Amino acid sequence: MNTLEINPSWMSEQWRCVEDALERWVPADAPAGLGQSMRYAVLEGGKRLRPMLVLAARRAVADARPEATLDEAALRAACAIELIHAYSLVHDDMPCMDNDVLRRGKPTVHVQFGQAQALLAGDALQALAFEVLTPCPSAIPDGLQGRLCAILARAAGHAGMAGGQAIDLASVGQDLDDASLRQMHRMKTGALLQASIELGAACGSESSVATGCLIEYGRALGVAFQVIDDILDVTADSTTLGKTAGKDAANDKPTYVSIMGLERSRRYADELLQQALQVLGRSGLRSTDWLADLAMQVVGRNH
Amino acid sequence: MNTLEINPSWMSEQWRCVEDALERWVPADAPAGLGQSMRYAVLEGGKRLRPMLVLAARRAVADARPEATLDEAALRAACAIELIHAYSLVHDDMPCMDNDVLRRGKPTVHVQFGQAQALLAGDALQALAFEVLTPCPSAIPDGLQGRLCAILARAAGHAGMAGGQAIDLASVGQDLDDASLRQMHRMKTGALLQASIELGAACGSESSVATGCLIEYGRALGVAFQVIDDILDVTADSTTLGKTAGKDAANDKPTYVSIMGLERSRRYADELLQQALQVLGRSGLRSTDWLADLAMQVVGRNH
Repeated sequence: MNTLEINPSWMSEQWRCVEDALERWVPADAPAGLGQSMRYAVLEGGKRLRPMLVLAARRAVADARPEATLDEAALRAACAIELIHAYSLVHDDMPCMDNDVLRRGKPTVHVQFGQAQALLAGDALQALAFEVLTPCPSAIPDGLQGRLCAILARAAGHAGMAGGQAIDLASVGQDLDDASLRQMHRMKTGALLQASIELGAACGSESSVATGCLIEYGRALGVAFQVIDDILDVTADSTTLGKTAGKDAANDKPTYVSIMGLERSRRYADELLQQALQVLGRSGLRSTDWLADLAMQVVGRNH
Repeated sequence: MNTLEINPSWMSEQWRCVEDALERWVPADAPAGLGQSMRYAVLEGGKRLRPMLVLAARRAVADARPEATLDEAALRAACAIELIHAYSLVHDDMPCMDNDVLRRGKPTVHVQFGQAQALLAGDALQALAFEVLTPCPSAIPDGLQGRLCAILARAAGHAGMAGGQAIDLASVGQDLDDASLRQMHRMKTGALLQASIELGAACGSESSVATGCLIEYGRALGVAFQVIDDILDVTADSTTLGKTAGKDAANDKPTYVSIMGLERSRRYADELLQQALQVLGRSGLRSTDWLADLAMQVVGRNH
């Protein structure tokens, strides 16, 4: 099953909320097959890690501002960041990028619908993310809408995910040192993970200490996620991963494993997990249990 | 020269403001060549029609709310919509879409920088548009930020530009009737032109009558723009256009000219211009002179 190992019941409940919301918000009726390709890219599959992080961060800060509109805001932010993630996968898999044919256990979007449709579906999903964040002001306070869009745009753009992908492109066949590799991942995958936490935190507490701790948690989690990704690329098979395994080595891409080796990478992931859990402890926030669950799951995952 | 024929001095002044702002906001320092390809796609060239529409609409409604932060908001909205337009051209020109090699008199982005970089540049420009709309709240009131993002996201996405492109893709070699053609263009190019007016209007008057008139103006202008585009595709040469002429006929795409013929298309454009000017007269707004200039220019343009 291509989802998180859902042990805690909160996760399966929240996962269901996210699925239902995505089902509602990714339009079936977009013209000329566009709706079909957008829904194919987003629905049925995906770990929904980023949405879970948004909702877990919102829970951690909700004591200060328990309003229902802020729960709605967090759900929308959770879906918006998943839409950005989904669009990035569609474009990343295209022949001119990674040229991948398997994703979430299914043929990639361009294999299924053609390259032009894949390009458009990705473009439309990025726009949809911002649409989901900006409903009528009664659903999300209009001041918060701008704040959420600001976080998402910066994480997705040139100083975040897209910038990291540009570095990744340029790095094929190059020897990256540890610092450059870290910088690339901080942007390419870390920015969205980090933004998930910031989006959730923006839907609640105004305490800058607590927010600072959550951001530090997000940073450690982001690096841990990538280290584990690199480990799984060499240790897992494609069926378990739901995507092509061994791809980084085949493409001669630098990874944590290629730089540090497997054992040191595993130890590093464990250290990052401990860091993430410790900073939650220091945050002064009471309801960080979901965030702790997610950190353990990220480091313990096998796909 | 690949700009509007700048007769009125307001236009050259505002054009300069937009160029300077784009120069500031499209980052030179985005990593691994991404900044370079983004700037190539946006700077040096382009009619800037959409930004001019935003600024002209803002001028028309500014009597009611003359605040300087709303002028800043309009300038940001003007640049944001141009960034969306620029990204759409980059992706549209790619081999899997229109496969075009000439744009604004220069090699297209994928010819210059490769397909992967073009894909990323387009993606990053879309994100940048929303970034430009969401600066710190002292630059644009934070309630307005959400409203501007809402307009832009809907115009760019599945129910606007991206949806229109999907219909366009599906229409190659098909016989579209007049109504379907109109619907395709209303989404593909009309949505952004329309949104330009809405963005400008959102930075001002609260009067729904005036806003309604401006939207009607935008609708007529959007159709007129496309009719003229179709006329120019068969009557102008590539050097004058700055892009490949005769492309629609070569691709067997339905156009106003292929459906109505050249003469009826010209008459139709003139009727639309008259409609646009009349609705400005009925709006009750005093300072609609810039909007009138732009409508005349759109219908009178030769590239």
